[in-house]
Amino acid sequence: MTVCREAITHRPKSNFAYAVDEETIQLRLRSKRGDLDDCQVLVADKFDWPNRERLDMQLVRRDERFDYWQVEVEPEHRRLCYAFLLTAGDETLWFTEWGFESADKNELPTAGTDRSLHYFEYPFLHAGDVIDPPDWVSDAVFYQIFPERFANGDPEIDPDGVEEWGGRPAHDSFFGGDLEGIIDTLDYLADLGITALYLTPVFESLSNHKYNTADYEQIDPHFGDTETLSRLVDAAHDRGIRVMLDAVFNHCGRQFEPFQDVIEHGRESEYVDWFHIHEFPIQFEPRPSYDTFGFESYMPKLNTENPEVQSYLIDVATHWIEETDIDGWRLDVADEVDHQFWRAFRQAVKDVKPDAYILGEIWHDSRPWLRGDQFDAVMNYPFMYAVDGFLSDGSLDAATFADKSNRFLARYPDQINEVLFNLLGSHDTARLRYRYDGDEHTVRLALLLLLTFRGTPCLYYGDEIGMTGGDDPDCRRPMIWDEARQDRELHQYVSDLIGLRADHRPLRRGSLTFSRDRCGDGVVVYRRSDESSDDSLTVAINRGDAPISVPIAGDGEAGTVLFTTDGDVTVGESEIELTGQSGAVWR
Amino acid sequence: MTVCREAITHRPKSNFAYAVDEETIQLRLRSKRGDLDDCQVLVADKFDWPNRERLDMQLVRRDERFDYWQVEVEPEHRRLCYAFLLTAGDETLWFTEWGFESADKNELPTAGTDRSLHYFEYPFLHAGDVIDPPDWVSDAVFYQIFPERFANGDPEIDPDGVEEWGGRPAHDSFFGGDLEGIIDTLDYLADLGITALYLTPVFESLSNHKYNTADYEQIDPHFGDTETLSRLVDAAHDRGIRVMLDAVFNHCGRQFEPFQDVIEHGRESEYVDWFHIHEFPIQFEPRPSYDTFGFESYMPKLNTENPEVQSYLIDVATHWIEETDIDGWRLDVADEVDHQFWRAFRQAVKDVKPDAYILGEIWHDSRPWLRGDQFDAVMNYPFMYAVDGFLSDGSLDAATFADKSNRFLARYPDQINEVLFNLLGSHDTARLRYRYDGDEHTVRLALLLLLTFRGTPCLYYGDEIGMTGGDDPDCRRPMIWDEARQDRELHQYVSDLIGLRADHRPLRRGSLTFSRDRCGDGVVVYRRSDESSDDSLTVAINRGDAPISVPIAGDGEAGTVLFTTDGDVTVGESEIELTGQSGAVWR
Repeated sequence: MTVCREAITHRPKSNFAYAVDEETIQLRLRSKRGDLDDCQVLVADKFDWPNRERLDMQLVRRDERFDYWQVEVEPEHRRLCYAFLLTAGDETLWFTEWGFESADKNELPTAGTDRSLHYFEYPFLHAGDVIDPPDWVSDAVFYQIFPERFANGDPEIDPDGVEEWGGRPAHDSFFGGDLEGIIDTLDYLADLGITALYLTPVFESLSNHKYNTADYEQIDPHFGDTETLSRLVDAAHDRGIRVMLDAVFNHCGRQFEPFQDVIEHGRESEYVDWFHIHEFPIQFEPRPSYDTFGFESYMPKLNTENPEVQSYLIDVATHWIEETDIDGWRLDVADEVDHQFWRAFRQAVKDVKPDAYILGEIWHDSRPWLRGDQFDAVMNYPFMYAVDGFLSDGSLDAATFADKSNRFLARYPDQINEVLFNLLGSHDTARLRYRYDGDEHTVRLALLLLLTFRGTPCLYYGDEIGMTGGDDPDCRRPMIWDEARQDRELHQYVSDLIGLRADHRPLRRGSLTFSRDRCGDGVVVYRRSDESSDDSLTVAINRGDAPISVPIAGDGEAGTVLFTTDGDVTVGESEIELTGQSGAVWR
Repeated sequence: MTVCREAITHRPKSNFAYAVDEETIQLRLRSKRGDLDDCQVLVADKFDWPNRERLDMQLVRRDERFDYWQVEVEPEHRRLCYAFLLTAGDETLWFTEWGFESADKNELPTAGTDRSLHYFEYPFLHAGDVIDPPDWVSDAVFYQIFPERFANGDPEIDPDGVEEWGGRPAHDSFFGGDLEGIIDTLDYLADLGITALYLTPVFESLSNHKYNTADYEQIDPHFGDTETLSRLVDAAHDRGIRVMLDAVFNHCGRQFEPFQDVIEHGRESEYVDWFHIHEFPIQFEPRPSYDTFGFESYMPKLNTENPEVQSYLIDVATHWIEETDIDGWRLDVADEVDHQFWRAFRQAVKDVKPDAYILGEIWHDSRPWLRGDQFDAVMNYPFMYAVDGFLSDGSLDAATFADKSNRFLARYPDQINEVLFNLLGSHDTARLRYRYDGDEHTVRLALLLLLTFRGTPCLYYGDEIGMTGGDDPDCRRPMIWDEARQDRELHQYVSDLIGLRADHRPLRRGSLTFSRDRCGDGVVVYRRSDESSDDSLTVAINRGDAPISVPIAGDGEAGTVLFTTDGDVTVGESEIELTGQSGAVWR
């Protein structure tokens, strides 16, 4: 057997080699699944070559096709050069930046010289290049609110023609939700255990969703005003809840004054370069004669490469932080805005609030934005797809769910995985319960996954009380406040899960490792281990219909079950008997 | 036979998917060598999914292990989503961001939805994200000068104790070279065909190499002054020659005033945070108590993360451009300086001179610095290694040389490959002739490669007249100006090669493709093709001792030989007979 060289991957200064903190570099190597028996890395300072050492790498992850090996190194002088030593059966190989060579007779790669030019290098570990998301996000439980539909605290500012609370929304419905309503319900959220809110846009706009901003400097009058937002943020902070707003900077609304000016004055407008206009006078039909979000003529794309636009929008971002003390920005359609803009945005935002959370809306592999110079994290839709595939549509069996999850976890540095914005739905998707055909059990399993997985969880408003709804606009129904119509058991369940996460540091900050030998037959088992508290918890989820028993003893000690989804779960001394569609967490 | 899925690689916004210009995205896919019969890509606008099309990808490169497929796409609305269709024998596979699936029955990947969320995406092509090195660099031929050793134009400013011109340098020798000397020899350089100079450091410093700067604001008094530099730049510009200086910003010299202040005042110095000091008072022995370049106590590392240092050094960079009109900066030890610094540096430098060339000294795979936000190019030492391996030390046979070269070309976007700083030696290596044991023939072949390869060539002073010398300090001998002691034939040869490059656009701006069926037995053949001039040239190099004949006819037409390294090369109508260790270029 020979090593599959085509599968071997490593790259300095990427998700394969990055600074975890100011002293530590994490190295990863990818090999073909099951291919290597052993993996070591030879490390040295390139100017102090005799003091080299070999470190064992651990196999920390496996996906459909690859194994991932990992080790942490603390180079004394912050410079690191290194080569990998791969073993498979009788074959031993050096792997350097230059290529592969047999290690049978070579104690060192022959391509190496005193300056070890062919080795891999992490040339210098700078504090400022460490990817360092805000610490609080690791502990947070987010709750996404669509303000027009959450709570009506001030009927006096309702738009004309509001519909009765509780009706089914059309695309252009208004129900009267506002910021005062959110203030009124903060105790509800605090009781549930929520520690951070994500509000979809609140700035002046004609639509109910307000993703077509008319005025970035005004709170929508039907939502309140600056004073209301300030009170909301203060009242939230009083309860230990942070507030993140939605920055819609890819495009504006048609009513945005600079765009109105271009409609009116055409080429002569001083704002002509704020947009991407292809023809004058501006056409709206059949397709707009200017760049838009999608082909939506009511959402003209902003020219974020124009320094004027850049400085205008960045001022908006810092203004609202300074004015109302909000704690972060979620960035709408973030991947369609240029990178230079986001770099400048990050610098300005972190200057006024170093621990502000910068969260990009990107549905795809987001490595180009997660190198420390742009976002802290992205909305983790791939997590949602994987959970759906495993629990709902059946496209992923248990082992494949573990594989996919591992592939996603291998994409980013660990400190980013810890704050990835995990979600099971949003204003842009059908609701969890709807997607799961109202199946209580699998909905609960999905929530168990959300709240015990690596990454920062976010609940979509109402999911905790069993609200349903298909694609937009149906997923944006008014929040149900009548307890008689709420699923109170589910609410208790979610509250318990949030409490569980809050009580156990490994669930918030621990690494995540699938227990491969226990995954299969519809059962997923993973361990959350936290080195600093020397604690670890295990989570098991049985998606199948048949009961199944899972060993829970470890290191000769009986496990302690901390949580079960279902009273029927039977806890033995050394194993747990999970009924069909149930789950448990134990230490 | 099944497709080796482990080898298949693609990643948006990387060297696998990047903007070539404001309209065009280049897509690349990597597969196992020889594995795929065919590769296509399905492309669409994600908001206009019905208007999708399938494009054929071309197999443009092959290395030891992989094939590289490539295609250019011009998405009408600058948004691109895509999936690859791979064919190998009977197997057809869809490859998306989500993974692989059989394409036997699926006209589209099933994982795709209307919003095609599992597809790959290049979300939006922004002009500002296009990697766009200065246009002039594509046409340039650089010449590296070590000013202390090039020419003594003003003996009055010689340092004390200069040695006689022509002696063998020790580490601390001075010979009296200066800027006036460079001015005096500009006609020599212009005659040779040089169009750009790279000067190692010229700022005040006690050493002969001046990589330990004492004062970034003064030209070293033994080299001249600001006025001399200005005259040098003007005189060079008059001859169509650009001038690039060396920015040593990773570290300074011990005499740098802020460091002297820290030596004197310790913790109380206002410059204490300009460096990384671990202990006070400062120790120099046995190892410095502060970070340095290597462990050299005379080169204290600068804290480029300190905003004061950042703004000081960036002012230095822009000052010299504004004051003397230099055309670029070569960045010493660039990989040990933080990325944020280089981003700010780039912005400031391009603001004052948009076509300044920013060249990093990095000996390794440099992708983390070549994303458009930091450098235009790096010094291409891997090219030098590969040429040495093929022509000198014999570690690479012809096919492996082609493989390595292709691997390096696959690392970067094509527009970066075009301006990579190719070199065959520098002040940091033994000289070309020394490494080649004085073998005239292989030295000539190396120069033929340098001047016909993709990338901007740089000659190290004196290599064109056959100077030799081992590692530093021997590679820094004074330039030989006595024509009787110069290898004038070699000089003519280099001059001819530079002329050839100047006369034929494909050699400067064409793509590079190895002719695989003609590579082997010590013969390397590659084609430089330029679409815009519809012209292409072929280069053949026979490293072996035996004569070999290479077909030169193409498309039914006889070739026209434009250059041979050796009068003994026999040109036939349909083939060329290369003697041992010879080369030729034909159309």
